[in-house]
Amino acid sequence: MTWDQTIPVRLNIQYPIIQAPMLGITTPGMVVAIAEAGGLGSLPVGGLSPETTLQLIRKVKAGTGKPFAVNLFTHDIPAIDINETDAMQDFLEALSDEHYLGYERQDVAGFKFHTYKEQIEILVRENITAVSFTFGIPDDESIAQLKSAGILLIGTATSVKEALLLESKGIDMIVAQGIEAGGHRGSFLDDEPLPQVGTLALVPQICDRVTIPVIAAGGIYNGVTIRAAFVLGAVGVQIGSAFLASPESSAIPAFKTALPGSTETDSELTRAFSGRWARGLRNSFMEAMANSGLQIPVYPVQNSLTGKLRAYAQQKDKMQFTSLWAGQAAAQAKPWPAADIFNDLVRQVEAAYPQPA
Amino acid sequence: MTWDQTIPVRLNIQYPIIQAPMLGITTPGMVVAIAEAGGLGSLPVGGLSPETTLQLIRKVKAGTGKPFAVNLFTHDIPAIDINETDAMQDFLEALSDEHYLGYERQDVAGFKFHTYKEQIEILVRENITAVSFTFGIPDDESIAQLKSAGILLIGTATSVKEALLLESKGIDMIVAQGIEAGGHRGSFLDDEPLPQVGTLALVPQICDRVTIPVIAAGGIYNGVTIRAAFVLGAVGVQIGSAFLASPESSAIPAFKTALPGSTETDSELTRAFSGRWARGLRNSFMEAMANSGLQIPVYPVQNSLTGKLRAYAQQKDKMQFTSLWAGQAAAQAKPWPAADIFNDLVRQVEAAYPQPA
Repeated sequence: MTWDQTIPVRLNIQYPIIQAPMLGITTPGMVVAIAEAGGLGSLPVGGLSPETTLQLIRKVKAGTGKPFAVNLFTHDIPAIDINETDAMQDFLEALSDEHYLGYERQDVAGFKFHTYKEQIEILVRENITAVSFTFGIPDDESIAQLKSAGILLIGTATSVKEALLLESKGIDMIVAQGIEAGGHRGSFLDDEPLPQVGTLALVPQICDRVTIPVIAAGGIYNGVTIRAAFVLGAVGVQIGSAFLASPESSAIPAFKTALPGSTETDSELTRAFSGRWARGLRNSFMEAMANSGLQIPVYPVQNSLTGKLRAYAQQKDKMQFTSLWAGQAAAQAKPWPAADIFNDLVRQVEAAYPQPA
Repeated sequence: MTWDQTIPVRLNIQYPIIQAPMLGITTPGMVVAIAEAGGLGSLPVGGLSPETTLQLIRKVKAGTGKPFAVNLFTHDIPAIDINETDAMQDFLEALSDEHYLGYERQDVAGFKFHTYKEQIEILVRENITAVSFTFGIPDDESIAQLKSAGILLIGTATSVKEALLLESKGIDMIVAQGIEAGGHRGSFLDDEPLPQVGTLALVPQICDRVTIPVIAAGGIYNGVTIRAAFVLGAVGVQIGSAFLASPESSAIPAFKTALPGSTETDSELTRAFSGRWARGLRNSFMEAMANSGLQIPVYPVQNSLTGKLRAYAQQKDKMQFTSLWAGQAAAQAKPWPAADIFNDLVRQVEAAYPQPA
């Protein structure tokens, strides 16, 4: 196969394969491994402080001189509904008492949410190659700042409507995120009903309507799914779950161990952990939340509320009480170094289309 | 493109493109048009009486001497919960009164449900080429009868587990139905939670695990989606929504007219109309049912309950009160004769891979 050169040329990388930004899973080491292997690593910094953002970028740069992407969460900061958060904290406390999860009641009034706007200056100063984003569109000023610094912008769309809006705002490329994708839905125009279009139907319908390059995401895990994405009109693919079980992934051991025994039907969409819809393996926490009937605070309020409980569960390797973000092909994840997984994907694609001798 | 010959050879047809059986939409004329164009038309007879089944088969045979498939619903007949149906009829009466839908209360005790077992003998006698089925697996006796008559059997799977069970029962081919698909989910092992795997993730994971031929369904509507399905490992495709607006479709005029203005996010899964999960364009009936909070009787009880209301709405061309089964690419349906739609699909696929001169 002759790889499409649109993305390699514009980003100065070898292969149009993007490692998906997976906040809480992706380490700087994973980004370095993918960059060195010739792909585009994505460093997730959504909701992090400027200081942490800078530290993580520096860690990646210490490992590679190659281009990589930084991924932002471009949502607005919501107001907090104290009645909702009080009821949610009652629930989290009771759950914690029942299952020894070490939850401590938090002072919600003291919550401080960072916005992507605090990170823009760092991205410009650090001369980042590409900035991808999800949960919205950066404001016009941020877009102008990033573009005038020569940074390539990659937005996330879960519908044709979102793709058209991204294009109209001057975004350079679009990740078309199908329903197969693990983790958070990038949806930002409609939340209820949430767009839930499969990758196979979404990618060509977006490609038909926009002129900028489209990157397929959701359910892509091997040679044939990569090739199918290209046939559908994408010029690149974004792959996350395939790297979940790598040593560079900070998924907890119990989750990594459980992946090979899971199936393509074991995940579902939930707002339980963060307040935003995301796909993860079903577990006790999701079930308890659904049974509670509680109104779930919006993102990132719920994300902050559950943060300590998730952190504790992770420390104790209790996979029933933390988010297990996974796509519909996560069962195929290999426990190999990220570079080996990446190289194997490249090999599978190239094996299907032998190079001319 | 050299078309994969697995299905053409086994079914004595020209192209491995199957027109999806769409009960209430597919007419004998549509099956004839597809058969004459070189594809496999599918005549849906799920739940119909033996007499009607035979009449429809004869109509197809009067129009073509070419092979076609007959599609069965292979579910068990459930018990009726009178408390549930009484509450549902109260709701349907009130809705009908409010919107002038002509609903008349029915004697549920008098409901007579036909089973596929009543249809087997006709299929054998009529020497049908292929029998496809959904909602389950025929019992061993029916499978033996059909197979000893030389009839090729095509099952429907929405998960790897269902595909493996179909293969173990000696079924010849499998339709892998992704979540993009319009109409009823073929799921028969798990209903809650319902398998909701996208076509791009489902097809290769099924192909990896079974040795029998796999047909991709869900979201396939043009040349690139057909080619992608083949790349994913399918040796055939099943296409439904693309034929919705054809003159051979018995979709009501309002529905046909609405399709081009609809989008890929306008459909969702509902049990409101039939008691089984199915994908259709959102409308007032689905919303009213969701707001009612009522327990929906299982299929085919709910299907029979809503039947008269749907029939009345269809007569009056009121699309807010009948099922609008549609997949996630139904907006792309062309108002052309079914044969023209079919020929255009073939042309699109072949144009991408020029034949040697």
